[in-house]
Amino acid sequence: MTAIDVPLPVFEDVVAAAGRIADCVRHTPVLHSEELDERYGGRLLFKCENLQRVGAFKFRGAVNAVRVLAQEHCTSGVATHSSGNHGAALALAAKLSGIPATVVMPENSAAPKKAAVARFGAEILYCRPGRIARERALEQVVARTGAAIVHPYNDDRVIAGQGTAALELFAAYPEIDAVLVPVGGGGLLSGTALAARGQGRAIEVVGVEPAQADDAWQSFTSGELVQLDAPDTIADGLRASLGDRTFALVRQYVDRIVRVTEADIIAAMRLLYAELRIVVEPSSAVPMAAIMQGAVELRDRTVAMILTGGNVDLDRLPWQEDAS
Amino acid sequence: MTAIDVPLPVFEDVVAAAGRIADCVRHTPVLHSEELDERYGGRLLFKCENLQRVGAFKFRGAVNAVRVLAQEHCTSGVATHSSGNHGAALALAAKLSGIPATVVMPENSAAPKKAAVARFGAEILYCRPGRIARERALEQVVARTGAAIVHPYNDDRVIAGQGTAALELFAAYPEIDAVLVPVGGGGLLSGTALAARGQGRAIEVVGVEPAQADDAWQSFTSGELVQLDAPDTIADGLRASLGDRTFALVRQYVDRIVRVTEADIIAAMRLLYAELRIVVEPSSAVPMAAIMQGAVELRDRTVAMILTGGNVDLDRLPWQEDAS
Repeated sequence: MTAIDVPLPVFEDVVAAAGRIADCVRHTPVLHSEELDERYGGRLLFKCENLQRVGAFKFRGAVNAVRVLAQEHCTSGVATHSSGNHGAALALAAKLSGIPATVVMPENSAAPKKAAVARFGAEILYCRPGRIARERALEQVVARTGAAIVHPYNDDRVIAGQGTAALELFAAYPEIDAVLVPVGGGGLLSGTALAARGQGRAIEVVGVEPAQADDAWQSFTSGELVQLDAPDTIADGLRASLGDRTFALVRQYVDRIVRVTEADIIAAMRLLYAELRIVVEPSSAVPMAAIMQGAVELRDRTVAMILTGGNVDLDRLPWQEDAS
Repeated sequence: MTAIDVPLPVFEDVVAAAGRIADCVRHTPVLHSEELDERYGGRLLFKCENLQRVGAFKFRGAVNAVRVLAQEHCTSGVATHSSGNHGAALALAAKLSGIPATVVMPENSAAPKKAAVARFGAEILYCRPGRIARERALEQVVARTGAAIVHPYNDDRVIAGQGTAALELFAAYPEIDAVLVPVGGGGLLSGTALAARGQGRAIEVVGVEPAQADDAWQSFTSGELVQLDAPDTIADGLRASLGDRTFALVRQYVDRIVRVTEADIIAAMRLLYAELRIVVEPSSAVPMAAIMQGAVELRDRTVAMILTGGNVDLDRLPWQEDAS
């Protein structure tokens, strides 16, 4: 399907997804810090999807996609390519629905990433690194098994599922003025924007991305979809570029895109641990980096952000000397 | 006051404490893991006091004590000796009530511990390491300032405050069959036992302590208060021995004390990070170590534990080679 032929998802799709996944997704806590509020002069809320199953919001979109497919009597399973949290999320979602899953991973993926996929019983197919090798390997899986592809973000079912995190957030805190979300492929940002636009009041929706992987900013600013080949950022979950579906939604519903530096991402990750006592992935710290840069108005406002993932190797933290 | 003259605190004191501290204490989240439940064959709940203000349940008892004192028009401030979380907790509690605080700390305390006390404006008085040097220094503070001493655990107001964590837990999960709590000086265990005994149904209350600091087990078993001089355990928050107040409460209300090994404590800390994505202090991992040892019946039961603190130096994790 292409963006031209199929209508974009809407708020009601997010609401439907929330109902579809409610029984197996964790209603994650929202944390705050009196000290951070005092320091930045506003009220900050942190929706902890790092405490979601598989340690990332990705589980929401994966479950929604798998359950839609299961309703459509898809028995040949699901497949995707992923070097990160989407692979583990799809593996668990498929296991819960009793259907097979195949995850194409680059052969140089880190051992914990491989283990996270393998533990839920998915078949792993290793390929050479690089986008083209991944896509070819995935095509072969589909040709062999007839599996349905669940793309990590450029998929309407995934987008709707990711939006359910913000839905929970707005239900619990109707006073939220702005929400900040990291941007990689744009699935979470699109879903969050859909959730915000259905609230019947003005909520500022801000995407935040690493300056070194600023395809979304470039696309948003130029009005043309820009895709970067292999951007280099410590926020490894945000190296993907927007797809046609997510770009269309971001253009339509997102207020602005903010860019942050690598140093600020690491500083934000440390600050979140110091003040909230939670360890988040560099990709998750990106919205806090925007706050630290002063990129968001906080005075007399309630500003929420989604902490997207908590899968960090504690023995290889980015500020430690021996970390790569 | 001595244990003989003053009646022990009761359930109603915990309820009163909860009301007294409600506006400034965080209602901490309760986490669970479908994978842990499957592995251990029961339902496990984790009350996350590591996400409490100052990163530990200690804030509850400190606020309750300070507010009782403030009601009694105590203007000469509060003082304590602490090398850990109680010092920071008392510093913040005093700051919020606008009264001065002095914390006696061993001069060899770790820099982050000193910083945690100093950031809330408490005066730090350094003393030589060792119980006697601490107590002398504290006596001098009291003689000079007239401050009221808030003991880290052998204090009825502190005990009642610590019990409020379990009160929240039982209110949210009335189906809890057993609750596991780490034992150091016994403040949290005593308060938790009081909270459990007021629920009007049988809740098993289990204290868990490092085998290398098993004063509570020895006291509980022998019926005589045993105090250890300087036990060596990685669970640095549990090196204290029961006091007369906490021993009396533990004897009366606690079902049993379980001991765990150092290796199991570290393994539990790692498991909690792997499955819940939260970093807890070694002292907090002690109840999970008891679960891993099979010391608690889980079949068809809901078993809760209190994760007591999250103040961990990520650059010195206990399983890392260069950690002391």
